[in-house]
Amino acid sequence: METRPSTALLTDMYELTMVDSALENGMGDRQCVFEVFTRRFPAARRFMVMAGVARILEGLERFQFDESQLRYLANNKIVGSKTIQFLENYRFTGDIIGYPEGEVFMVNSPILTVQGTFAEACLLETYLLSVLNFDCAIASAASRMTIAAHGRPCLDMGARRAHERAAVSAARAAQIGGFAGTSDLEAGKRYGIRAIGTAAHAFTLLFETEEEAFRAQIKTMGPQTTLLVDTYDVEAAVETAVRVAREAGGELGAVRLDSGDLVAGAFKVRKQLDDLGAKSTKITVTNDLDEYAIAGLGAAPVDSYGVGTKLVTGSGIPTASLVYKLVARENDSGVMEPVEKKSAEKSTKGGLKWAGRVVEDNTAQTELLVTGTDEGGANQFFAERGARALQQTFVRGGEIDTSWIGQEALARAQQRHLDSRNELPYQAWRLSEGEVAIPTEFVHLDQ
Amino acid sequence: METRPSTALLTDMYELTMVDSALENGMGDRQCVFEVFTRRFPAARRFMVMAGVARILEGLERFQFDESQLRYLANNKIVGSKTIQFLENYRFTGDIIGYPEGEVFMVNSPILTVQGTFAEACLLETYLLSVLNFDCAIASAASRMTIAAHGRPCLDMGARRAHERAAVSAARAAQIGGFAGTSDLEAGKRYGIRAIGTAAHAFTLLFETEEEAFRAQIKTMGPQTTLLVDTYDVEAAVETAVRVAREAGGELGAVRLDSGDLVAGAFKVRKQLDDLGAKSTKITVTNDLDEYAIAGLGAAPVDSYGVGTKLVTGSGIPTASLVYKLVARENDSGVMEPVEKKSAEKSTKGGLKWAGRVVEDNTAQTELLVTGTDEGGANQFFAERGARALQQTFVRGGEIDTSWIGQEALARAQQRHLDSRNELPYQAWRLSEGEVAIPTEFVHLDQ
Repeated sequence: METRPSTALLTDMYELTMVDSALENGMGDRQCVFEVFTRRFPAARRFMVMAGVARILEGLERFQFDESQLRYLANNKIVGSKTIQFLENYRFTGDIIGYPEGEVFMVNSPILTVQGTFAEACLLETYLLSVLNFDCAIASAASRMTIAAHGRPCLDMGARRAHERAAVSAARAAQIGGFAGTSDLEAGKRYGIRAIGTAAHAFTLLFETEEEAFRAQIKTMGPQTTLLVDTYDVEAAVETAVRVAREAGGELGAVRLDSGDLVAGAFKVRKQLDDLGAKSTKITVTNDLDEYAIAGLGAAPVDSYGVGTKLVTGSGIPTASLVYKLVARENDSGVMEPVEKKSAEKSTKGGLKWAGRVVEDNTAQTELLVTGTDEGGANQFFAERGARALQQTFVRGGEIDTSWIGQEALARAQQRHLDSRNELPYQAWRLSEGEVAIPTEFVHLDQ
Repeated sequence: METRPSTALLTDMYELTMVDSALENGMGDRQCVFEVFTRRFPAARRFMVMAGVARILEGLERFQFDESQLRYLANNKIVGSKTIQFLENYRFTGDIIGYPEGEVFMVNSPILTVQGTFAEACLLETYLLSVLNFDCAIASAASRMTIAAHGRPCLDMGARRAHERAAVSAARAAQIGGFAGTSDLEAGKRYGIRAIGTAAHAFTLLFETEEEAFRAQIKTMGPQTTLLVDTYDVEAAVETAVRVAREAGGELGAVRLDSGDLVAGAFKVRKQLDDLGAKSTKITVTNDLDEYAIAGLGAAPVDSYGVGTKLVTGSGIPTASLVYKLVARENDSGVMEPVEKKSAEKSTKGGLKWAGRVVEDNTAQTELLVTGTDEGGANQFFAERGARALQQTFVRGGEIDTSWIGQEALARAQQRHLDSRNELPYQAWRLSEGEVAIPTEFVHLDQ
């Protein structure tokens, strides 16, 4: 087993200086509530998809400062000795609740809420946001692609177009958005995702002739493999591919098209395959696809989509624009009170929020965000309004609920996303620019 | 010291299946030349910036398969037992040459060339591309921002808007593009980059009043700190900030504006600071900046720029669209020969390429890509044409030249980028959409 590295310095310096100053001024242990949400969606997102919870929980386990990290902070005078002592023993001891992976969310949805002392909760800001901003962006793009694919499998082939570690996380987020496999082996190994892939143009070019390359690939992988047919001439390659597979005793599994006009190419190749009697041979396409290109291929005889660049870069929206804001804290008298900043265009709505979704006739109507009450009061209100509660508990008193981590949790997240997406009104599924799927209603219960 | 994990599975499955089939068919040890280049630039890039070499070399050191990785590959039947044996002993033993970090590059520039057997060079494809596609995209965006900033410092504050590990690499790439610091502590520690940051709105909200928060921050960090002045009312905050700093015995270092119209805001705050006699107090701005917003602030009294989202997402171009293509290989007779694929719109120019840049009157004119000769022949040709050779050796016979790694190498890369950028014709510096800075000329020397 490899040892995974500490996550504690995946942190902006100002979190450390704030903690330093808070501790020095006796404010470090004030109880606080921080909330992750987004203030607005880009026009090309009608809903977004929660992803990254399992990664957060795994990283939280490793959010501890080792000796070399503490030395760095001390030597560079980023914090003082009192804070070094605090960090030496740092473990998050508070609570984290939020939307489970796969659940859709809207503008202002409190997708993650962190409760703890200022010092312990402040430190997590950048780490939590980095994970959620990336994973939610990718899962949201993936969901649009699987909507456009109408049940045909979408496969992640984007590793090379993303940072090498981000690619591993992107493969996981794509699964939550409905993808059916990944080319990335680290993601295959770490998350139990089905790994896919056969050969690139380089393999064909390695041999003197295309036929030799096809023979070699089929010898190793069998006739059920996928052959890449556009290195030289597609028509000649398809003929060779089918023939070589049959000579090896089977019908060819699939051909892959990676260039040219894929719609025209798919029709042409399908006809050729059918004329050759290779009716079971499938066609997979892979050239710079996004949700619009996938939709455009809807009428073409294509069996699966390999998606690269546009998936791992969030199809134009590479970050979910989530923020982490203090919404409540203990006052001088030890009483929790809501706080709100008043910056131009960037105000925050104060108070711990409970989230529920009103669903009528199996269709989501409204995202309810309730303040001024406890969980029991919120749940009672949700029952009256026909809403289901959206938040789950991930960490309680520092104890991580590990049922949110692992291969089964990922499968549940994929199913949860399908269910949650199916509940949205039809216009939420449209790829065009438009409004957020359902409105958000703030309700303050004065209890 | 933390142990950094293996990079060997940051790899697309098809690289393993190709190696498997090549080894089975006796083609694995054919000598090959693979080349990294891009076929086109987006309209908003007139040049791009090489970055990621040091990360590649560090990762190459750790590109070895451990037991659990081999077990994964075997159990999932991704490769056969002969390949498992090959991978057990895998170490790259070939050569890698390319553009040094900071150097600009053009369309078709061979920024990295890998020579080795098919099996050993094929395996590196995804890892090399992931690093270069991300790092070059960020360095290129950073360069446009530092051009727009005209000497005012640009600071990376984007960690929260990128994948948590990508953020660390982004901070490094931004330095190459001319940035002066980062908020990301892991990048500060790992690469020796100057770490920056003071406080967020949460710190102000933690206290009953803004004045208490300012006092607390100044008590810990001194009057030279930067105070965030837009939590409530900017004008009141600036007055408080200057006063509190003076009461602590100094003039305030800087104020930070993070919302509203930054141009108008900067003029207003500058006037207020000057009226208060705080002429040395600087203004830093940080709200969703990109190169255009920075350019728009050129006439405003701003002293530094904190850039987040747009830096770490490549300012609209989140990947450099680099590809890794086989351009030459040994034939049946053991002679190296160029290979080219002929796919529609995606053809490759075959042959090992030597790159030089013609510079006249200190201005770059042409990128020369020479095939059909060895390094000596190319250098002679470059001398005749007034070109400087662009490629350097990073790995020779598997031996990594470690002078390309580390803090000094990073400082040299930053200087190299300035020099290389200064050499480009003026239109290359324009932020508007346009043509690639200098044309690329392919020259085949028949020797």
